[in-house]
Amino acid sequence: PMFDNHVMPYLESLSGVKLVSRELRVLGIGEADLTYQLRDIIENQSNPTLAPYVTAGEVTLRVTALAKSEAEGLSLMQPMIDEIRLRLGEHLYSENGEPLQALCARLLTEQGKTLALAESCTGGMIASALTNFPGSSKFLLEACVTYSNDAKMRRLGVQADTLARYGAVSPECALEMAEGMRASSGADIALATTGIAGPDGATPDKPVGTVYVAISSTAGTQVHSFLQWGDRGRIRYATVLSACDILRKTLCT
Amino acid sequence: PMFDNHVMPYLESLSGVKLVSRELRVLGIGEADLTYQLRDIIENQSNPTLAPYVTAGEVTLRVTALAKSEAEGLSLMQPMIDEIRLRLGEHLYSENGEPLQALCARLLTEQGKTLALAESCTGGMIASALTNFPGSSKFLLEACVTYSNDAKMRRLGVQADTLARYGAVSPECALEMAEGMRASSGADIALATTGIAGPDGATPDKPVGTVYVAISSTAGTQVHSFLQWGDRGRIRYATVLSACDILRKTLCT
Repeated sequence: PMFDNHVMPYLESLSGVKLVSRELRVLGIGEADLTYQLRDIIENQSNPTLAPYVTAGEVTLRVTALAKSEAEGLSLMQPMIDEIRLRLGEHLYSENGEPLQALCARLLTEQGKTLALAESCTGGMIASALTNFPGSSKFLLEACVTYSNDAKMRRLGVQADTLARYGAVSPECALEMAEGMRASSGADIALATTGIAGPDGATPDKPVGTVYVAISSTAGTQVHSFLQWGDRGRIRYATVLSACDILRKTLCT
Repeated sequence: PMFDNHVMPYLESLSGVKLVSRELRVLGIGEADLTYQLRDIIENQSNPTLAPYVTAGEVTLRVTALAKSEAEGLSLMQPMIDEIRLRLGEHLYSENGEPLQALCARLLTEQGKTLALAESCTGGMIASALTNFPGSSKFLLEACVTYSNDAKMRRLGVQADTLARYGAVSPECALEMAEGMRASSGADIALATTGIAGPDGATPDKPVGTVYVAISSTAGTQVHSFLQWGDRGRIRYATVLSACDILRKTLCT
């Protein structure tokens, strides 16, 4: 704060120019792919500059302009931001650095929609992330962390036959979890996760990192499949981001 | 790792002495109180030394001895550790730095006991913390994050009359949440949290930070009340620690 509030303004007043920057947040595309898609912009950058950097499971692009004012900086950056938006499409979820979980909480609040969660492999991490925001009781009705098969059947109405035939980590189970949660909670949207976070639990056809995320709303139910990499902690966190990304896309359409 | 594995052994080999240390972890007693209770030990320390330091919601005591060997260091420290254990009683939960959440996961696994959670103000943070440990599916049957009154009634059997008369943040509601969760899940132990994490939701007689934690087992049900301080994030995290501490004490008796 001392640097941002005192030193930087002082330096800017001495030099007559200031640094204006924006964080573009990207999900669902790796850093290598992203850099390739933006290679000509990165190679030809001068003012504004473009710097990609990686944080847990995500890539952030920092666009920075050197300008006489905030307004001039923004107008220098705008063509680059417009071009990046065009190329990345829905992979670009924020142009002002807002984290994905905060974006989901804000969209739910603004749209007055309610959410219920059925979490298996994420074990309460999505609920925990969303309830961190004040006012989350307005949109989050409930979450069930259904770790055991018994809980999946009793709380969410997953069929014993589905578990026996396809297993708890399957698109079929994820779908029944989401639909069962939406029906029992009465929420506008239900989001479900099931997967193998490891280190145990893998089978020949379902390696560690196999994850299914289902979303159910008035528009119907979709199941998305993922193969997350990394250790238990990373797989769980990447699944939180994947699930929030699916929620974000549903809320934006 | 380079320092621990190479530099430190080299320095120790040059000097002929080594530093041996243990972390004692303490909960439920503030740093000021703790320092007061141990003031003569702290004032008269030479070898071993005793240093209290504070992390989020907890106090850690670091006991460090300068000795020729690990064994000699430990025998130098033992009388001090014994004396601290005597004075702090059950506030001292670990003598080897093990975090509280890891201790709970280990005790449940070792004792073959099952757990179910009914979380309101902690919003899935306890489930999220415990499922971070590999093998947690062995002991955690399920968790319900019952944010709405409807979910508290439907999932846990909390009585409408209890909510109307005492409110969702009350010892009566916490008790019914824990007992309802134990009955429906069939778990050996059920743990419930309800409270006002803020910034909104306070009433004249229930300020922000008012929290009730209930635990239900074959030994019966107890409700503990807390007044946590700090912002939403700190109140929620302090409640996770309070709840895990109650679970730890139940598992240790």
